[in-house]
Amino acid sequence: MRNPLITIILCLGLLPTNAQTHSHAGAQPLTYPNIAGYVTLKTDLHQHSVFSDGHVWPTIRVQEALRENLDAISLTEHLEYQPHKEDIPHPDRNRAYHLAVEEAVEHDLLIVPGSEITRSAPIGHSNAVFITDANELVHEDAKDAFATAKKQGAFVFWNHPAWFEQSPSGNPILSDFQQQLIKSGQMQGIEVINSVDYAEESLALALANNLTIMGTSDIHGLIDWDYTEKGNHRPITLVFAKEKSLPSLKEALFAGRTVAVYNDLLVGKAEFLKPLLQASIHVLKASYLPNTQVLQIELKNSTSSDLMFENAMDYTFYDISPVFVIPAGESKIVHIKTLEILGSFDLKLKALGAYTEPKVHPIIEWNVKIDRP
Amino acid sequence: MRNPLITIILCLGLLPTNAQTHSHAGAQPLTYPNIAGYVTLKTDLHQHSVFSDGHVWPTIRVQEALRENLDAISLTEHLEYQPHKEDIPHPDRNRAYHLAVEEAVEHDLLIVPGSEITRSAPIGHSNAVFITDANELVHEDAKDAFATAKKQGAFVFWNHPAWFEQSPSGNPILSDFQQQLIKSGQMQGIEVINSVDYAEESLALALANNLTIMGTSDIHGLIDWDYTEKGNHRPITLVFAKEKSLPSLKEALFAGRTVAVYNDLLVGKAEFLKPLLQASIHVLKASYLPNTQVLQIELKNSTSSDLMFENAMDYTFYDISPVFVIPAGESKIVHIKTLEILGSFDLKLKALGAYTEPKVHPIIEWNVKIDRP
Amino acid sequence: MRNPLITIILCLGLLPTNAQTHSHAGAQPLTYPNIAGYVTLKTDLHQHSVFSDGHVWPTIRVQEALRENLDAISLTEHLEYQPHKEDIPHPDRNRAYHLAVEEAVEHDLLIVPGSEITRSAPIGHSNAVFITDANELVHEDAKDAFATAKKQGAFVFWNHPAWFEQSPSGNPILSDFQQQLIKSGQMQGIEVINSVDYAEESLALALANNLTIMGTSDIHGLIDWDYTEKGNHRPITLVFAKEKSLPSLKEALFAGRTVAVYNDLLVGKAEFLKPLLQASIHVLKASYLPNTQVLQIELKNSTSSDLMFENAMDYTFYDISPVFVIPAGESKIVHIKTLEILGSFDLKLKALGAYTEPKVHPIIEWNVKIDRP
Amino acid sequence: MRNPLITIILCLGLLPTNAQTHSHAGAQPLTYPNIAGYVTLKTDLHQHSVFSDGHVWPTIRVQEALRENLDAISLTEHLEYQPHKEDIPHPDRNRAYHLAVEEAVEHDLLIVPGSEITRSAPIGHSNAVFITDANELVHEDAKDAFATAKKQGAFVFWNHPAWFEQSPSGNPILSDFQQQLIKSGQMQGIEVINSVDYAEESLALALANNLTIMGTSDIHGLIDWDYTEKGNHRPITLVFAKEKSLPSLKEALFAGRTVAVYNDLLVGKAEFLKPLLQASIHVLKASYLPNTQVLQIELKNSTSSDLMFENAMDYTFYDISPVFVIPAGESKIVHIKTLEILGSFDLKLKALGAYTEPKVHPIIEWNVKIDRP
Repeated sequence: MRNPLITIILCLGLLPTNAQTHSHAGAQPLTYPNIAGYVTLKTDLHQHSVFSDGHVWPTIRVQEALRENLDAISLTEHLEYQPHKEDIPHPDRNRAYHLAVEEAVEHDLLIVPGSEITRSAPIGHSNAVFITDANELVHEDAKDAFATAKKQGAFVFWNHPAWFEQSPSGNPILSDFQQQLIKSGQMQGIEVINSVDYAEESLALALANNLTIMGTSDIHGLIDWDYTEKGNHRPITLVFAKEKSLPSLKEALFAGRTVAVYNDLLVGKAEFLKPLLQASIHVLKASYLPNTQVLQIELKNSTSSDLMFENAMDYTFYDISPVFVIPAGESKIVHIKTLEILGSFDLKLKALGAYTEPKVHPIIEWNVKIDRP
Repeated sequence: MRNPLITIILCLGLLPTNAQTHSHAGAQPLTYPNIAGYVTLKTDLHQHSVFSDGHVWPTIRVQEALRENLDAISLTEHLEYQPHKEDIPHPDRNRAYHLAVEEAVEHDLLIVPGSEITRSAPIGHSNAVFITDANELVHEDAKDAFATAKKQGAFVFWNHPAWFEQSPSGNPILSDFQQQLIKSGQMQGIEVINSVDYAEESLALALANNLTIMGTSDIHGLIDWDYTEKGNHRPITLVFAKEKSLPSLKEALFAGRTVAVYNDLLVGKAEFLKPLLQASIHVLKASYLPNTQVLQIELKNSTSSDLMFENAMDYTFYDISPVFVIPAGESKIVHIKTLEILGSFDLKLKALGAYTEPKVHPIIEWNVKIDRP
Repeated sequence: MRNPLITIILCLGLLPTNAQTHSHAGAQPLTYPNIAGYVTLKTDLHQHSVFSDGHVWPTIRVQEALRENLDAISLTEHLEYQPHKEDIPHPDRNRAYHLAVEEAVEHDLLIVPGSEITRSAPIGHSNAVFITDANELVHEDAKDAFATAKKQGAFVFWNHPAWFEQSPSGNPILSDFQQQLIKSGQMQGIEVINSVDYAEESLALALANNLTIMGTSDIHGLIDWDYTEKGNHRPITLVFAKEKSLPSLKEALFAGRTVAVYNDLLVGKAEFLKPLLQASIHVLKASYLPNTQVLQIELKNSTSSDLMFENAMDYTFYDISPVFVIPAGESKIVHIKTLEILGSFDLKLKALGAYTEPKVHPIIEWNVKIDRP
Repeated sequence: MRNPLITIILCLGLLPTNAQTHSHAGAQPLTYPNIAGYVTLKTDLHQHSVFSDGHVWPTIRVQEALRENLDAISLTEHLEYQPHKEDIPHPDRNRAYHLAVEEAVEHDLLIVPGSEITRSAPIGHSNAVFITDANELVHEDAKDAFATAKKQGAFVFWNHPAWFEQSPSGNPILSDFQQQLIKSGQMQGIEVINSVDYAEESLALALANNLTIMGTSDIHGLIDWDYTEKGNHRPITLVFAKEKSLPSLKEALFAGRTVAVYNDLLVGKAEFLKPLLQASIHVLKASYLPNTQVLQIELKNSTSSDLMFENAMDYTFYDISPVFVIPAGESKIVHIKTLEILGSFDLKLKALGAYTEPKVHPIIEWNVKIDRP
């Protein structure tokens, strides 16, 4: 008798709604181009549901990810912090993962099993993803938790290293414990962007210790309320994987092939950030204005980030400022004074929204063939 | 050791976010005026959380209500349909209510205890609100559930009477069982608007059986996704109470003092809908254009509904169409040809978005004093 | 030596502008469907340039019309009111027309020669369009002006009959002079909509005297400033012509085949307004919801007006209010309770934004074939 | 008899329009702060009307300026290029100026008399503003035109030096003729921004020759169509004058106290651009996050330009990217890691949208007092 009822109730609200004229768009699909040899996976590997201290059922996390066109997510419930435990006693710490898998079953969204190992400083918070059983990570001694994660083959990254609650100066302090984790191959990544926060020092730590650069939303409430409504996209990690699959994603994370993205800020190692930016701009047209040596080129930004550039050539521009923005998904026409009629040239732009090191913007080059009149 | 951790974690994400320039507004505060003798309470008394078949923790329902400036909500979890029971075994069926009360404790939002008695036709779905203990309503025999609700002093209303899953013609069919409920004082209300659906026949039933007219969201997912994003407000019931308190709200529901509202549609008994509309429009200015008998008046709509009117006077308009809209919260200037210079006059408009009976629009009157030059 | 300079100067500003992200759209192209046997021409036959009391060169009027996708315009300069005469002595009163023709030469926009015969009441203002020489219309005695217009084969219409400056009550008064004009075939049309003003009494006069119903912008400044910025389209006259040509337009005006449109207000004789509305709505899909007698139909509004309807059938709706709007260019899904499974049915809607007589809305019918499951 | 008619006609269209809900905003008022010792005047000293090759009556230029809240404009009609001469024979070349003065009479808008001396290269186009009689500037020999301008006390600036029609490479070439003009005190300014075009080389010429830096719209059509609709503001010259008056404006132009602005691009000599930017940002609040050394400051941009900055301090940010934008008129919260608790500090930001020399961004400093807890 319960079964028909279930069917009935699930049908409620399935009628197409008659929207009023002026709708308020929610989160939009994110898009970033592939780079040579790799597919670019949009991931958010640090999220919470009611199975730790989040406010939604895991299904909502899947729906949010589908709206933003993510490729992979992880519900990394705190192992040690379970404020809803009274209502959700869950003997199985993998439960949020399983519910997400179930919700995503008909969609092309990868669900990564994960957990957050949650301690005060100097141990701090860390995510272990690609674990095989969250239950086994529950230990009194943090060392045992990390050791188990390693045994399970997990990829582990340090969460919000600059968080002022654990480091009142706002500077990340790599503790002896964490150094040991890194040395022993028990920690391979670091969040350089966590929720709305970017720390240059975390980037420096990533580079100095060869850690994988991560960006995550650390969402507890609703993506729409914390990000979309304020005009932001959630932070994500772009992962350059050999294919869209869980093993490939894992391999790429261990290999450090990532760029962290939050809106217009892109942070990554030069070897991945530069080809990403190179692939992000397409030169649609290049030709001289009649009877001039003024070259007109149209640049198309194929990403969901507004990309900010500064002219890095000796050639000057005819019209716009040397510092300019190509809005997400849009094109911009730039006029360049090449002084003589060229058949091709190297467009060089400094990406002001991108960092390969603290305070270092990459310069990107495009070889442009010029149309003959 | 757990306590400091809790504090720490709750602080995450409290930094003011740097919004990008062009934000996407979420749900907006709703506003409707009081009427003579009563405060107008904005209520949504039919909602679900993870404690039955909803997708969010009760805290989200409270936050959603605060965003829309509601005065009262009820989490009416299905008593008999508990798809998350495996994860949330909850021995106490009042749990969602208690969690909502806790979340609302520092806010001026009334939380009404309630449950949904959920059966197939001919019994159908009904909400019992202002119950004292949901656990006692769990019965094999529906009759016992309604009897207990009555014993607890509950206000009971029939949910989505026109729902095609229970009535394939889309027409509400008042079963013998339900007639008996009404006759025996075990059902006092009826949803005339449920989620996106309005049924004239339900209005007719309300009037014929002197049932309280209700409008509810019946939300399971997110208000933003189901309503706001599509340019809609959630359906609500305006309740005209002696004061903003739970006892007053209950008294008003039993007394039938309500108007159901969904966007620009307002449905209620004439004795409440007419004064509501009367109070909804303020005549800001009224004066003659110099050297003419053309009267200029400015009408301000103080509600969150676009109000659609048709001229119901013998006087004609100078400029706009006899059918016109005053958008929510905005003013409109209307010019009326009074043929002679008057000191005051009765503005009469038919409210095309309002129904006091099936197919019947109320005509609203305002006595307007005209400024002397 | 002057010639090269001209070329040079005209090239200034021709570079594509780099727009910032968030542009403020100007006037949008207007669209209304053809009706059986006729093409629907969008016209604005009452406009001014610097050649009488307007503020722009005739070229701007052509550009404005092209932006709104009009089919025909007329620059109806006041013959007797020439405030710029000191600067523009123009011996030829056809000059604005010629300049507009020149500007429109490469576009599919018809330029109608016209003039405004401008007198105080009881003669009032009238437009004569399809004249052959404006110079000949300049006469001390208005009678001579109208007689000449007739001799030239002009179509003549009464401008803003309800204008309070000429009729302080705001009611149009058909003077003896004007009655004589009509009787003698020297006046064939009347503005029912002029700029932002609609007068029911003018519609009554049109019907009583078999005058062609006109709607015009009477623009003196900028269309964007007077209309677009305020969220309005300019008023236009839809003319149902045998083809898009000046002779066909003229023939249709004399035959009275018009509908005046201002935003969502459509005013016309039933024989033209009803087929226009009929053609304005397309039934995209009609099928029953599975296992119900609830018919789902999708209605597409192919016009630039938001169309407001009221259910005029015995069948009731499943979801939306009986009064509803289909926004310009958008679709709306409506669910109808047909009580039994039908193979086809007559959809009947009253058009609340349309008038065929004062206070009379046409009821429009569409025969809908229903898809079999 | 003509007079009453005039009154009547001017009243047409004065009724308040009933705007539809969703208006499309036109040009918005521009605002930039004063700097120490000077009021900042927003000027556009290069515009055209129908009195040379523009498309509007001078009244429209005044109305456009009032909408954008400009302080001063000049209608610089081409002296030698008069395409509407057939229709507007105007014996007086000051006519556009006089009509603008008349339109502006009740407004606080300065009208500067001016003319454009229009020749092919190597003489090029130049504006002479603050002339006393345009008629006297009409000469066969350009030398005589400039000599007369000087005799009249005019401020003269070189228009669009980089214009590819006169310099196909897009690089400004300072001809012998022009060098002579500068040397002899007959040319004092140079357009660094003309319509949508900015040329670094023009800035270099300005600095090398101590010319006043100018930015102008060079508008021929409508400001809304060429700029506003595309999301742009018109280019203007900010002039730092002792007071808002024509003599002060003239004095400031000769003294070179200007910044040219086009949207987010600001170009000027360091001695004026730096104080302008300094005054453009207000530090609204500065206090430490509790129990941290993370300083929270709120920065308010009081200008109509989105201002783009890069952190130029040793201190790093807690949250946002070192490169960030404070949108026009908005505030942004920035968190700075000062490592210890300070009582005050020097905020230093590089202004990426501003240039004091080609490729040189000014660094702006603000001394910030920090609130004690």
